[in-house]
Amino acid sequence: MARKNAFYAQSGGVSAVINASACGVLQTARQHSEEIGKVYAGRNGIVGALTEDLIDTSLESEEAIAALKHTPGAAFGSCRYKLTSIHQHRAQYERLIEVFRAHDIGFFFYNGGGDSQDTAYKVSQMGAGLAYPIVCVGIPKTVDNDLPITDCSPGFGSLAKYVATSIREAAFDLSAMCRTSTKVFALEVMGRHAGWGTAACALAAVEEGDGPHVLLLPEVAFDEVRFLAKVEDALDRYDHCVIAVSEGVKGPDGEFLSASGSKDAFGHTQLGGAAPFITKLISAKLGCKCHWGVLDYLQRSARHLGSETDVQQAYAVGRAAVELAISGRNAVMPAIRRLSDEPYRWDIVEAPLAEVANQEKLLPAEFISPDGFGITAAARRYLAPLIVGEAYPPFENGLPDYVKLQNTAASKKLSREFAV
Amino acid sequence: MARKNAFYAQSGGVSAVINASACGVLQTARQHSEEIGKVYAGRNGIVGALTEDLIDTSLESEEAIAALKHTPGAAFGSCRYKLTSIHQHRAQYERLIEVFRAHDIGFFFYNGGGDSQDTAYKVSQMGAGLAYPIVCVGIPKTVDNDLPITDCSPGFGSLAKYVATSIREAAFDLSAMCRTSTKVFALEVMGRHAGWGTAACALAAVEEGDGPHVLLLPEVAFDEVRFLAKVEDALDRYDHCVIAVSEGVKGPDGEFLSASGSKDAFGHTQLGGAAPFITKLISAKLGCKCHWGVLDYLQRSARHLGSETDVQQAYAVGRAAVELAISGRNAVMPAIRRLSDEPYRWDIVEAPLAEVANQEKLLPAEFISPDGFGITAAARRYLAPLIVGEAYPPFENGLPDYVKLQNTAASKKLSREFAV
Repeated sequence: MARKNAFYAQSGGVSAVINASACGVLQTARQHSEEIGKVYAGRNGIVGALTEDLIDTSLESEEAIAALKHTPGAAFGSCRYKLTSIHQHRAQYERLIEVFRAHDIGFFFYNGGGDSQDTAYKVSQMGAGLAYPIVCVGIPKTVDNDLPITDCSPGFGSLAKYVATSIREAAFDLSAMCRTSTKVFALEVMGRHAGWGTAACALAAVEEGDGPHVLLLPEVAFDEVRFLAKVEDALDRYDHCVIAVSEGVKGPDGEFLSASGSKDAFGHTQLGGAAPFITKLISAKLGCKCHWGVLDYLQRSARHLGSETDVQQAYAVGRAAVELAISGRNAVMPAIRRLSDEPYRWDIVEAPLAEVANQEKLLPAEFISPDGFGITAAARRYLAPLIVGEAYPPFENGLPDYVKLQNTAASKKLSREFAV
Repeated sequence: MARKNAFYAQSGGVSAVINASACGVLQTARQHSEEIGKVYAGRNGIVGALTEDLIDTSLESEEAIAALKHTPGAAFGSCRYKLTSIHQHRAQYERLIEVFRAHDIGFFFYNGGGDSQDTAYKVSQMGAGLAYPIVCVGIPKTVDNDLPITDCSPGFGSLAKYVATSIREAAFDLSAMCRTSTKVFALEVMGRHAGWGTAACALAAVEEGDGPHVLLLPEVAFDEVRFLAKVEDALDRYDHCVIAVSEGVKGPDGEFLSASGSKDAFGHTQLGGAAPFITKLISAKLGCKCHWGVLDYLQRSARHLGSETDVQQAYAVGRAAVELAISGRNAVMPAIRRLSDEPYRWDIVEAPLAEVANQEKLLPAEFISPDGFGITAAARRYLAPLIVGEAYPPFENGLPDYVKLQNTAASKKLSREFAV
């Protein structure tokens, strides 16, 4: 196989470790210079390919590339942009080929979640459909942990570690204050459809009485009466109640609580947020002082508390993607396979993109406790190893020292612009 | 002076390092066993004294006491409970004396913010007023950093480090996503009246373009037109805008934005939260996608990212309080004095409680930039050293290993109950 350049891009919501995957891709590609020439990164994901806005990563120093391993965000910019099918929008695919041909790109690496694996899959099909030879490999990433086949998704372990740590700290706070002040604290956790992050909060509770005392998972329909009874029970037992609530928790009608017709239970418009919604409900019905927190983007960027396990896996899937590509494996994604829970052992296997794209892995029923407000021992066995190890970034002047790349654009070779 | 027992309690909102002060008190008291017998901790602050609910700290191991240095929350429970004046509620003071006499308590240590120093001051006056000899020393603590005289307040440095780190991470996230997704992120920071925490977020910005781009301080009246122009300017320059907003930001009418008559600018009831309020305003007026986060209690409990400087100061004021007490200094508080900015040098001096109680130190005008949306170089010089150093707690199974004390109650000696 003749030496070809590669295209790498980051897609969808960022994570604390997507740049660790980038580091794995770039360092491994540099070790395989006989097969891979330059690696061009798409500025803002696939948008960079369509607009011929390619970053020449060969201009970045070894040090800068290494520092990606401890830097959150998406070093080349990410995007929320989904390719339609080749039948619906042939011009998009023709444009990709035009750009790839102009830059002699024979490898396509796309780093993202379910939607992004769909993009990767479509590009892989393009090769056959438009007679352009390209080896296309997806790289898993999602804090939501909802990709199928792979045992877990890089990005999730660090989110899990951060939210579990945060709720443990909030529980220490609340249990100290509840005698004369706030009795309830609710922390809102990401995951529109899958409750993996909310479930991970339960790792903070080890002994009887430890918070969180109640989980509200998107997989379990919200039942106001049963929920209030559960909160009251915690208040009776411990004089305080710590709640982890998924942003995606839904009522019996299937509507998000946080956006239920733009009205809350009291007829007022919501500003959004499941945590303010449920704490307002508790205040109104149980009459106690409540507080709430919404981490939002912080939870997918909190590299200061990265999980070492997660960082290793993110790097490993980046490295494996390059190794798969140079072996000519097209339309695949490196996936993490769990070999044992304790000691935790894993390796990397190959998953067909066709089976990964557009699938969502929810919490299985056997991970949810019978009352729906907690997790089972099986879930705990699954989650526990993913947060192990502290991969601290370097600090300078008291703050994490994250790298910003130069991101120098490669010269354009095409005269035609393409609007996205 | 005959050997006497001591009373120690924690009061007001907790911090990441108030237990480090407790560690300083307890370890130092144990080194002065000729002057100080047992240290009884009030369960839930002064409430524990009034109800004779005293914790016998002599039953805690050396290891457990040492672990307080890395444990957030308030190990003995805290309270929001303010003593009224001796003229208004003489029975309260008589009860305190009754309890102190029963347990041979000659030293009173009260660890808290402005309200708590007021309590400490009142107790110190009680000695004279009710002819009971007691040496009373306040210990500073407040994440709000609003205590006077002391150059900074233990608890603030860790909050500052955490919010500045968090907003730096959010800025990495937003700048990576803004091309096709969210353009604005607002992080709400504690500080009802003083904007120290919000100001500290600005430490995250080092180079041109770094977030946060806008601060909304409680010391500066919110001006919608000027604010929107500032946001628009950041969007024009950087295609995204990161905002740190104080929970206490007020409109020109002096009302909190987050609770302006329970209505937002659109006539809808607020769930609370300045960050959702201002992002809703931006969405409506500038038409871009916004996200927001509210850290709430997490920011005062985030010991996983404690500032080493803060931990050292928290410990030092605890130790100094005991040393002051055994020298017979009554109605004082150890305060931190800054000797130089760079290298940062500080020592401990003595402040009269009468001058500390019920004062609030706001951001001085010379710390606020001329446009009101940022901080000055002087503010940066003041803030920078307070976040330096990483005092990581030990981790176990991927989570911080915080100590829970046994908190064994001392036998009651009084038959009478006292209702609080």
